Amino acid sequence: HEAGVAERAWAWVVACMIALRAAVAGFARKVWKIGADDPRRAVHGLKVGLALTLVSVVYYTRPVYDGVGGNAMWAVMTVVVVFEYTVGGCMYKGFNRAVATASAGLLALGVSWVADKSGDKLEPIILSGSLFLLAAAATFSRFIPTVKARFDYGVTIFILTFSLVAVSGYRVDQLLDLAQQRMSTIAIGIIICLAVCVVIWPVWAGQELHLLTVRNMEKLAATVEGCVEDYFAAKPAQAQASPKSEGYKCVLNSKASEDSQANLARWEPPHGRFGFRHPYAQYTKVGAAMRHCAYCIEALNSCVRAEVQAPEHVKRLLGDVCTRLASQCSRVLKEASSSVAAMTGPKTLDFAVADMNTAVHELQGDLRALPPVLALEPAEMSLMDAMPLFTVASLLIEISARTE
Amino acid sequence: HEAGVAERAWAWVVACMIALRAAVAGFARKVWKIGADDPRRAVHGLKVGLALTLVSVVYYTRPVYDGVGGNAMWAVMTVVVVFEYTVGGCMYKGFNRAVATASAGLLALGVSWVADKSGDKLEPIILSGSLFLLAAAATFSRFIPTVKARFDYGVTIFILTFSLVAVSGYRVDQLLDLAQQRMSTIAIGIIICLAVCVVIWPVWAGQELHLLTVRNMEKLAATVEGCVEDYFAAKPAQAQASPKSEGYKCVLNSKASEDSQANLARWEPPHGRFGFRHPYAQYTKVGAAMRHCAYCIEALNSCVRAEVQAPEHVKRLLGDVCTRLASQCSRVLKEASSSVAAMTGPKTLDFAVADMNTAVHELQGDLRALPPVLALEPAEMSLMDAMPLFTVASLLIEISARTE
Repeated sequence: HEAGVAERAWAWVVACMIALRAAVAGFARKVWKIGADDPRRAVHGLKVGLALTLVSVVYYTRPVYDGVGGNAMWAVMTVVVVFEYTVGGCMYKGFNRAVATASAGLLALGVSWVADKSGDKLEPIILSGSLFLLAAAATFSRFIPTVKARFDYGVTIFILTFSLVAVSGYRVDQLLDLAQQRMSTIAIGIIICLAVCVVIWPVWAGQELHLLTVRNMEKLAATVEGCVEDYFAAKPAQAQASPKSEGYKCVLNSKASEDSQANLARWEPPHGRFGFRHPYAQYTKVGAAMRHCAYCIEALNSCVRAEVQAPEHVKRLLGDVCTRLASQCSRVLKEASSSVAAMTGPKTLDFAVADMNTAVHELQGDLRALPPVLALEPAEMSLMDAMPLFTVASLLIEISARTE
Repeated sequence: HEAGVAERAWAWVVACMIALRAAVAGFARKVWKIGADDPRRAVHGLKVGLALTLVSVVYYTRPVYDGVGGNAMWAVMTVVVVFEYTVGGCMYKGFNRAVATASAGLLALGVSWVADKSGDKLEPIILSGSLFLLAAAATFSRFIPTVKARFDYGVTIFILTFSLVAVSGYRVDQLLDLAQQRMSTIAIGIIICLAVCVVIWPVWAGQELHLLTVRNMEKLAATVEGCVEDYFAAKPAQAQASPKSEGYKCVLNSKASEDSQANLARWEPPHGRFGFRHPYAQYTKVGAAMRHCAYCIEALNSCVRAEVQAPEHVKRLLGDVCTRLASQCSRVLKEASSSVAAMTGPKTLDFAVADMNTAVHELQGDLRALPPVLALEPAEMSLMDAMPLFTVASLLIEISARTE
């Protein structure tokens, strides 16, 4: 009997081990896929490691360490907190940290000088009172949209520095030394961060935004064509949606990443084809227009997959014109995406838009001339609604291409 | 001549002053509006000020200060960094900070003990090497979606603590003292944060999410009705869109805030009607369904505002049925929103859905029976497409209401 228990326990342990191994292997595969999809992520990890090691070398180097004293830890902290995936993010945090530390430090020095002069009784009251007021005001200012977008991190650091300096209770002459040391260590940290971030395989937020926009536009073009082809395909393609016509779903949810990238891209120095004051705000406008398109495609797609379908003969009548219109549409989008990709003006885009408008008029004419047998014909109609939006979108794309 | 110059300079200064005053007044009005729209924001500012003042009192209290030494500044830092607008955010950061500091500290103690034992030559190599590897691995782990969503802040703190302890170059026995002091100061900071955050007018992320969902559902209901009314109104309402029918635009862009709130809400303790393991994930599903609806309404809206309109007599024929259907639709949405608001099961919702389906069949019948004069009739068609989606949405809402 005991042998049986031991055997069962052993079997249980083995089963657990196998399950654990499977779970670990699955997790490892997932992690490997994340790295393989975008090797820059793994490189980013190595870059952070390198920057930290560099900063720890500064720490070990006696002359530098003696120069800045125990404050060398601020360099380490700066590197950990400031290092971001994109160059824009790094710049944003570095700039915010430097400016906020300097301004809050100066202000705190002033306040503690005043508190110092006003006697022992008033000193803690002045210090705590100013801390309360400043922290409340600064925290509230984070709800102002502009501050939130550009200086959110700076405000945190401002409060942090001010409270550390105001509370620490040193004399002003000691504080001056401390402030100078801390500023220089933070400067070392920021410089190492920026150097590693920019020199080794940099990831530019502007470029990411650019590629995202181009990719989304191409996906939209493929989806428009794929959808209409699905609809007029011989068999009802309800079950298997072609992967082509699913691309618009990324476009629907891209607002948050677009906004943050446009926000960070503003901090980046000129690089490659992205000059000074590159119109990043235009990308968000183009993105909004593309989302507008994607909403329409969503409606169109629900028609394709709907249970109630138009009768076959009606479909056959309009199939030709609709397919032509869809291909014109997707041509316009492709032209626009390639003109955005190449950052050139829209040379052939105008022609493509004109062709598309011709196709729209053709479809409208055909619809009017149709024998009035059709009672249910949603897909064509939705395509019709989609048209004005496509033109709106292409107009916006023109604008953006021109400003580039 | 000179008097003229002085006069012009004076006029210029006065003009500048007036412009400056106007700008300041405008900014002040904007800031005031932000506070007045949601007084909890101003209260949040005051709460941060209060927490910081409390922590600075700890700093001034000699017994506590002497107990933890210069490490009291970690309490200040913790309060500044951990204090968030919602209770969930505060919990998330506090938990992450505490766990990450403890685990990284222990690991760093172990590594520096090993380095200590392996001789002077190997020591910096072991320390720098482990720092490089750990920082790279931890940074890369932030790209894993689960880690990103729940432990992003913790990973930062983990790297920070590990590098500070590993680099600082103290002996292990000193480090133990240091670690204990630092843990206790961080604990003080987190406790003060949570106390102020929960006790004084708390903002619960779960409740915010709940209200957002209910509000969005009501907006959708109003929009469906408003849109169809606009369409069948006597005058073409192209110029002035009723404000009622613009509400769906918030729904389109609410994904990011919904996701983050659902994420933070998971950290909150049970409070009020929100029990333990409240199904916050259901809210994001309902949100996705609502966005699906909003896409349809977007298409519908573009029909209402389109240049090509159906002829008046066709509109009159269908106006009645469509308006009825729209009101049924918005009734379903209103029922759903009130059942979500009250967190009760869908008692009357089923009836409302059944009524809506009857109205759909009615409209379909009317469309079939129509004299086949109509060539262009987009709006009704879009409404037709919208129907299956509305039912999908209401089904999802039912599911969520049942789990609640």
